[in-house]
Amino acid sequence: MRVSVFGATGSIGESTFDLLARRDDIQAVALTGGRNVARLAEQARSLGAEIAVTAHDDCYAALKEALAGSGVEAAAGTQALIDAADRPADWVMSAIVGAAGLAPGFRALAQGATLALANKESLVTAGPLMMAEAARHDARILPVDSEHSAVFQALVGEDTGAVERVIITASGGPFRDWSLERLEHATLAEAMTHPNWSMGQRITIDSASLFNKALELIETREFFGFEPDQIEAVIHPQSIIHALVGFRDGALMAHLGAPDMRHAIGYALNWPDRAKLPVARLDLAAIGALQFEAPDPVRFPALRLARAVMEMRGHAGAAFNAAKEVALDEFIAGRLRYLDMARLVERTIDQLLTDSCLTAPVTTLETVQAMDQMAREAARTLVLRMA
Amino acid sequence: MRVSVFGATGSIGESTFDLLARRDDIQAVALTGGRNVARLAEQARSLGAEIAVTAHDDCYAALKEALAGSGVEAAAGTQALIDAADRPADWVMSAIVGAAGLAPGFRALAQGATLALANKESLVTAGPLMMAEAARHDARILPVDSEHSAVFQALVGEDTGAVERVIITASGGPFRDWSLERLEHATLAEAMTHPNWSMGQRITIDSASLFNKALELIETREFFGFEPDQIEAVIHPQSIIHALVGFRDGALMAHLGAPDMRHAIGYALNWPDRAKLPVARLDLAAIGALQFEAPDPVRFPALRLARAVMEMRGHAGAAFNAAKEVALDEFIAGRLRYLDMARLVERTIDQLLTDSCLTAPVTTLETVQAMDQMAREAARTLVLRMA
Repeated sequence: MRVSVFGATGSIGESTFDLLARRDDIQAVALTGGRNVARLAEQARSLGAEIAVTAHDDCYAALKEALAGSGVEAAAGTQALIDAADRPADWVMSAIVGAAGLAPGFRALAQGATLALANKESLVTAGPLMMAEAARHDARILPVDSEHSAVFQALVGEDTGAVERVIITASGGPFRDWSLERLEHATLAEAMTHPNWSMGQRITIDSASLFNKALELIETREFFGFEPDQIEAVIHPQSIIHALVGFRDGALMAHLGAPDMRHAIGYALNWPDRAKLPVARLDLAAIGALQFEAPDPVRFPALRLARAVMEMRGHAGAAFNAAKEVALDEFIAGRLRYLDMARLVERTIDQLLTDSCLTAPVTTLETVQAMDQMAREAARTLVLRMA
Repeated sequence: MRVSVFGATGSIGESTFDLLARRDDIQAVALTGGRNVARLAEQARSLGAEIAVTAHDDCYAALKEALAGSGVEAAAGTQALIDAADRPADWVMSAIVGAAGLAPGFRALAQGATLALANKESLVTAGPLMMAEAARHDARILPVDSEHSAVFQALVGEDTGAVERVIITASGGPFRDWSLERLEHATLAEAMTHPNWSMGQRITIDSASLFNKALELIETREFFGFEPDQIEAVIHPQSIIHALVGFRDGALMAHLGAPDMRHAIGYALNWPDRAKLPVARLDLAAIGALQFEAPDPVRFPALRLARAVMEMRGHAGAAFNAAKEVALDEFIAGRLRYLDMARLVERTIDQLLTDSCLTAPVTTLETVQAMDQMAREAARTLVLRMA
């Protein structure tokens, strides 16, 4: 199987590498990364990849040197990275974080690859476009997120027309029990202590604010095509049940697993089969209890905003995501308070609703990128008034 | 759809009737019951059945009178009940409690019907025979037990070869937290207070002792063909998750539903589709927590005995079931203490292991019936020594 990994040195990329390195039927095509060229070169050597690409031009020399004598080609820059997606591959992991992950995934679909999609922005900002591109080229998108993989698995062999609702779970993060007053003064360090998953800084903060869950609600809507009122989130601190699908006969089918991204990655890698994976087996008696509570829309406004975005569709996802990115930057930089992140996102969307064609259908990647820029600028202007 | 219901006036039968009465595409063929002929006649009139059969000869006149002018034929007696299964039907509910439920189900398979199997004895005592009969006539058995229906649903679209383990849940019953000392003196009234399900007396006591769960473990082995060491039981007091299937990729797929037999009955009735069912929808946040604990094999010896029976196969299931029935009779009659039920079952099996061909493969219903009789006699003799 010919395999490429976009975003190979991030946390999803490393878990993917772990699974690929255990197999002897993998022909690695392209691996891409950012500034950690030493690790990227190491992975590329280990898998015998055709090419390794760093997104940064100024990292080219270092990558080239790290690959010397390996037979692995080196390349650098945004265009080289996107072009790497044109190399024929059967299975492509899209794990670049942020809007930069969109284009390579889109290209991979155009050559008919199975796209293991971990990049959230692809569906949040350009869902209809991605799904149409996959259909056009008879390519397939497999979700690589615990929640969406769980929904996907619960739907195996089932008629999606019989689905009543989809419930994705959220750990609730470190602020699950915090009062609204206390949340106003939540710090960066406090937002960085995720109870169940070890991840990068941005995703950890997005988990604490439930902005990550908001993106996942939107992804659920775009990937599976369910209506907004069929999609719910429930707080489940243990992160053992990842999602449940409710059918019209009242049955709820759930996916449970240890919090380990290799579940979802491995499922996408082996689909439609299930191969043995090196993940921990659950011992329910040892876990003791699985708890659930309704998310508080006041303390976690991201969920309420997600619902509005799911209803609007069009370019609302791109605007939501861009505003959230700016808000996150500002919070990390200490220029925005924790709860002001949601306020900024809401105000940005409100402003764009009056100023632009926010809800026009997405037809090209270019309009998505334009909305991304417009929303970032709007958010940056608005943030000045909030400081 | 032509439908027959064996055991129409029991708790499974009534739930089945409830679902059938809501549909307008049902042609009722045969309904059978015991002494409650008034209710049997009422159901038969309501569904416009071809024939109603009471198992008891002395109830014939009353049934005949209750059906006067309805156009529904009346019949009585064991043979008439079995013969009713020869009437062509597309879907047959086997919900007679006890060994008497075996023959009609077996006959229904012979005419190619889909058999919705609630009668536990069919698989526990004659599993290989039932499965072979279904295969021979291209008939299908669908499990009607919350746990087995849950396993069945979790396997939809999946490769059973990828299954690592099956976990069925047990509420733990009223004695879940009782000490061994206290269990020695548990009374009939105490055993009759099931926390989640409202059922008949015998099944309620079997639930308290986990003998019901023991039967279900054996059924799981026979129906799905998994090895004994792949089948586990876990205590789950809320009875919301009914079973979980663990795959070799570490994923656990679970079925959740309100404790309502119409889940499993409705699933079997509509299979392979899922139709809208009048069951309560789960609100996980309102439920709050799903708890799990390992069952204690000392306080609940039935599970340990089940494991031995699963390993022995052959006629061990028939002996186990018969001895359990005698033990239950004796407990209800106040002649056997609660924990002595398991002791009696164990001693009966031990004795039969030396005296008979307990582990010989099951090839006819007759040898199953012979073992049933032999085990009952052995148990009745042994019980005299335990009083």
